[in-house]
Amino acid sequence: MTAIAHPLQCFFDPTSVAIIGASSDPDKLGGRPIRFLREAGYEGKIFPINPRYDTVQGLKAYPSLNDVPDPIDHAVIIVPATGAHDALQACIEKGIRHVQILSSGFAEDGPAGQVLQDALVALAARHGVRLLGPNCLGIVSTSNRFYATFSTALEALSPRPGGISFATQSGAFGSCAYAQAIQRNLGISRIVATGNEADVDVAQCIDFLASDPATHIICAAIEGCRDGDMLRQALLKAAAANKPVILMKVGTSSRGQLAAATHTGAVAGNDRIFDAVIRECGAYRANTIEQMLDIAYLCTHLPLPANAQAGILTVSGGIGVLMTDDAERHGIDIPSIPPALQNRIHGLVPFAIGDNPLDTTAQVGAVKQGIPGLAEMLLQDTDWSILCVYLAQIPCDERRFPDMLESLGKLRRDYPDKLIVLVGPHSEKMRAEIEARHLVIFADPGRAMAALGGLVALVERRRHLVRHQETTDRTPIVAAPAVGTQLDEAQAKHILAQYGLPMLRETLCTTAEQAVQAANTIGFPVVAKIVSPDILHKTEMGGVLLDLPDEQAVRDAYATLQQRAASVPGNPHISGVLISPMSKGGTETILGVHVDPWFGPMVMFGLGGVSVELFKDVAFASAPLTPARALALIQSVQAFKLLNGWRGKPALDVSKLVDALVALSHLAHDWRAVLSGVDINPFIARQDGAVCLDALITLKNAAPA
Amino acid sequence: MTAIAHPLQCFFDPTSVAIIGASSDPDKLGGRPIRFLREAGYEGKIFPINPRYDTVQGLKAYPSLNDVPDPIDHAVIIVPATGAHDALQACIEKGIRHVQILSSGFAEDGPAGQVLQDALVALAARHGVRLLGPNCLGIVSTSNRFYATFSTALEALSPRPGGISFATQSGAFGSCAYAQAIQRNLGISRIVATGNEADVDVAQCIDFLASDPATHIICAAIEGCRDGDMLRQALLKAAAANKPVILMKVGTSSRGQLAAATHTGAVAGNDRIFDAVIRECGAYRANTIEQMLDIAYLCTHLPLPANAQAGILTVSGGIGVLMTDDAERHGIDIPSIPPALQNRIHGLVPFAIGDNPLDTTAQVGAVKQGIPGLAEMLLQDTDWSILCVYLAQIPCDERRFPDMLESLGKLRRDYPDKLIVLVGPHSEKMRAEIEARHLVIFADPGRAMAALGGLVALVERRRHLVRHQETTDRTPIVAAPAVGTQLDEAQAKHILAQYGLPMLRETLCTTAEQAVQAANTIGFPVVAKIVSPDILHKTEMGGVLLDLPDEQAVRDAYATLQQRAASVPGNPHISGVLISPMSKGGTETILGVHVDPWFGPMVMFGLGGVSVELFKDVAFASAPLTPARALALIQSVQAFKLLNGWRGKPALDVSKLVDALVALSHLAHDWRAVLSGVDINPFIARQDGAVCLDALITLKNAAPA
Repeated sequence: MTAIAHPLQCFFDPTSVAIIGASSDPDKLGGRPIRFLREAGYEGKIFPINPRYDTVQGLKAYPSLNDVPDPIDHAVIIVPATGAHDALQACIEKGIRHVQILSSGFAEDGPAGQVLQDALVALAARHGVRLLGPNCLGIVSTSNRFYATFSTALEALSPRPGGISFATQSGAFGSCAYAQAIQRNLGISRIVATGNEADVDVAQCIDFLASDPATHIICAAIEGCRDGDMLRQALLKAAAANKPVILMKVGTSSRGQLAAATHTGAVAGNDRIFDAVIRECGAYRANTIEQMLDIAYLCTHLPLPANAQAGILTVSGGIGVLMTDDAERHGIDIPSIPPALQNRIHGLVPFAIGDNPLDTTAQVGAVKQGIPGLAEMLLQDTDWSILCVYLAQIPCDERRFPDMLESLGKLRRDYPDKLIVLVGPHSEKMRAEIEARHLVIFADPGRAMAALGGLVALVERRRHLVRHQETTDRTPIVAAPAVGTQLDEAQAKHILAQYGLPMLRETLCTTAEQAVQAANTIGFPVVAKIVSPDILHKTEMGGVLLDLPDEQAVRDAYATLQQRAASVPGNPHISGVLISPMSKGGTETILGVHVDPWFGPMVMFGLGGVSVELFKDVAFASAPLTPARALALIQSVQAFKLLNGWRGKPALDVSKLVDALVALSHLAHDWRAVLSGVDINPFIARQDGAVCLDALITLKNAAPA
Repeated sequence: MTAIAHPLQCFFDPTSVAIIGASSDPDKLGGRPIRFLREAGYEGKIFPINPRYDTVQGLKAYPSLNDVPDPIDHAVIIVPATGAHDALQACIEKGIRHVQILSSGFAEDGPAGQVLQDALVALAARHGVRLLGPNCLGIVSTSNRFYATFSTALEALSPRPGGISFATQSGAFGSCAYAQAIQRNLGISRIVATGNEADVDVAQCIDFLASDPATHIICAAIEGCRDGDMLRQALLKAAAANKPVILMKVGTSSRGQLAAATHTGAVAGNDRIFDAVIRECGAYRANTIEQMLDIAYLCTHLPLPANAQAGILTVSGGIGVLMTDDAERHGIDIPSIPPALQNRIHGLVPFAIGDNPLDTTAQVGAVKQGIPGLAEMLLQDTDWSILCVYLAQIPCDERRFPDMLESLGKLRRDYPDKLIVLVGPHSEKMRAEIEARHLVIFADPGRAMAALGGLVALVERRRHLVRHQETTDRTPIVAAPAVGTQLDEAQAKHILAQYGLPMLRETLCTTAEQAVQAANTIGFPVVAKIVSPDILHKTEMGGVLLDLPDEQAVRDAYATLQQRAASVPGNPHISGVLISPMSKGGTETILGVHVDPWFGPMVMFGLGGVSVELFKDVAFASAPLTPARALALIQSVQAFKLLNGWRGKPALDVSKLVDALVALSHLAHDWRAVLSGVDINPFIARQDGAVCLDALITLKNAAPA
């Protein structure tokens, strides 16, 4: 236990609990928590509250909380929605600071329910009381046998204590996950479903689990995210504690988002931005519950391995090849075996084939301790943190396998910082024996490699964590304007230039003569563009005239632009005409800022042309950026190759792109409260520099979002 | 049984079998097949051949095949490699026409083994005897209990008879697959591993299984493919018989291919071409053995469903959203529920939420027959062939579930052409009960949807089968030249023009005066290109001069090109200088032919620029093409959008691309024996036509490949 308890501690580890709306019927919603708490053997005190009974399921019942003589840590409210406010009021009077509301009939039911829910939140906030729910499934804590839930999943399935904890918004999602975990005999610590998240959300639960000594692995699922920074902090805290976090996000497809909106009213976040943030914060996103549990299973006997390098030892060449294909697909590094080690290997098993994968062939059965011997060489003489051993049907063989298992178990103890993954069909009995020796086994080679892919992604991500909090205090270079302000291209460029983005030498002109003068100063040919905060799409209305060769052309262009602007509906305000040098050559890139409703300002990078628009080849990173992160962002798009000496062309000056992205990220951060987005398209990259050709800054509307 | 037995029939259904190299030790290689055959209860006659014993494992043994008085169908040879030739000779003398050689020490062991193997093949071919192996694991047939294998997998695991058959090259791969199948209680019909494939290969086994009444589902894995057309025919035959084929290909990664080469010497095929052919022939490629078995499992109680439309009925909103996300990712169509049906649904379950997924909410437990009632409505009132039902933990509940299962089982009988997939954690006992009612269940929603994704891909592919054989007889438009012929650009374009590809008006000139005259006829500006069969990369050596405005420029260009060509090392033959009109505008596409070592001529399509080179956005199709298939090929690349009215631009004339691809595919087919590849890059697509700007045809070398 930490010296100061986590604010959510009493939700998970109360010394006493009141059940408000307790039922004598152990199958009813108000009866199940009492039954589960008693069956599990909860050691704290249970106070059923129900004015109609003297006893409930053999426990003394109280008409009201006031009648309980003892202090109470934690209350579970299971009364109809309309009675929840009074129940909460009673909790407050009793001094209870942690209240779960399992009842439904709140925000998920429409506007009337939302009113009820808002009243609960206001009441709790006034008194510093924390709320879990409403419309949630409750909490399970195996270490203290605290089963404050009405989940029927626990009727048929009983969790074994262990290090995996679950925090999910949807109770049913959580049940589906932990039911599978229980059936796989995975050890479980905490289970929490947050339901409507009127107060406590999944991010806060992850924060608790990150500091919870009983939790070693965190599995979570979210639908909405109210506070992206809280989620970032919680994930970073888990990373600092060396606890793997495997997340799922529900509602990623268009039809799924529609269904999610119907289901909980959650607004789906931008999926790619979610991925970027999760990656920065060292967590991994799984697509299926099974994969989430597979990765958690790999982590059960060992913290995260030190590196992503794996050896594959196999009794079958064909399966070795299959696993190697899978390794490449899943980003697992399969290094070559050093020559000296090759010699040692052939000293023990002369007929072993190949490098890595190392194929012992089926004949290895004739060599005493052949497989454990080779496994030990690979563990001892390499730095690889992972060893996969494909054993074919040997783990089904109760005559042959137990001896080998003893040897493998010894290796596990001798090399405690290395992960040993056995692969091959096996009996349930042998699986239990294997796991008792802190080894893991998968029946299917592909499934094993997919899980390892998730694990090595976690390992890699935790080497490159983005500690967002460290860089957020700075004085704005340019003070943010008020929301609702409209900026034209010239203003946007002026602001971006102050942040350090490279601009052309341009002049905003309000007469034809000014334009001609500007063109003479700049040198022909020039470009003339209409400038108006009200015209966002200049090209579509013919507002950009290129390659003007002389004074007369500039004069004509000025007139044409004024004329065209006058014919735009809505009487747009015209700031003037921008005269710029005609820029030629270079590679078009796109720099942008997207202010995400979950995660705030995110910087975007991509290449112009089809890369972004057709192939969706863009990447996002949280603002502000360091130069190293800006470079990583640039390198993470597929089209980076086009910048870096594509087809014999000289490499472009990527350092100028780095500088521009860092500068842009500072603007994004400084203006985060008012910004809606920035679009610099194109930003031209050259061999010897870079320049912004067009820029748009949009601010949030003054009206409340 | 068909009237005429399949040529491989006796490998699977012999009435008698000789074991040459039979051992009295039931654990030795030569002893195991006899033990397995006897333990399984094979009903045919077993003749152990071993001169050293009178009896082997209780059976009368014979010194040689000659000493056996009865006729014999099938022989299994398990003698050292050097003795295999004599053993095969004895089989031939005995009139045995189906011989398995399980012994190793052949091609997989190097050149000396290859010599031994070649001699076996020659001997067998001379006498019309079919060989399985060598270096293979043997055959299992459950219907007649024929277990002619030494696979130790069968010591611990015993297959249940059923409709799934396995044909794999690698015996260990096959064992891994069927061991998992047995542990999942999937019913198995035939198991065959082809080993070195000196004669019988996996494709031929698929051909057998396609016509085998005991086989309903075919699972296969290949490393190499000797005869792509045989594989195509076999897959189409399986499709015609409405038998799903789920394939795996081993050795797809670079390191995996290296390991595969070490392991079996197999040459890895082009992965994307393999995918294209498999798709055309109505098969599905799985990435993991588990996924292969998941799809097979879905098919066990029903042939392929009629369409790819699925309903999702769920007791949990959150999991419904997750399954809908998965459906989108896996290409499963989730249609909306018609309004009339919505009304019926709310008549039974007023609180049901949403459309499809249909969320019953957990309250559905209060409605008698709520879940089966809604399921029946969805089965009865829609055309959807698939219904997924997420039941949460209900299948763990032995009190509540059996009644519901009876109702669901009745639905299965009442709607025999619809696939009902249950999803939710469950006990092994309940799984058996579910499967006994011809229903399937998955514990994990994501796993269920991934399997369904494979199934609906099979359904879709079988609607668009490419019956390659129907289109292969035609008289060549241009007779194919001899291998080793070298064609220059002018010759290549002349041939392509004869096939109907649109060309510019171009003239090959051998003097400067001819070039000037040609340019005057064509009209300025023109392009001058060096033409030489020895210079494949004209651009790199400065052999293309663009935009020549007048006679003098053409004269200069002619001289420059002659000079540059003279300085190319190797004394290239110069055919002349090609004078062409300067072509401007249009969208660059790439048309090509790649002659695959497995599958022969494949037509390729992609767009110029970064689409192909950076984003690998190309597609392949088997030649020859029909116009419909050519159009599908064009539409299958992501960049198709660029042709079809991208960003407000007019759509290009895709019909001209279709014509060009069909014409090119005819050349590819006519010249398939001599062609190495065709590269038409760029082929310009315009609003009102299309034209070939550059073309290269390369033929195979005269030297044996």
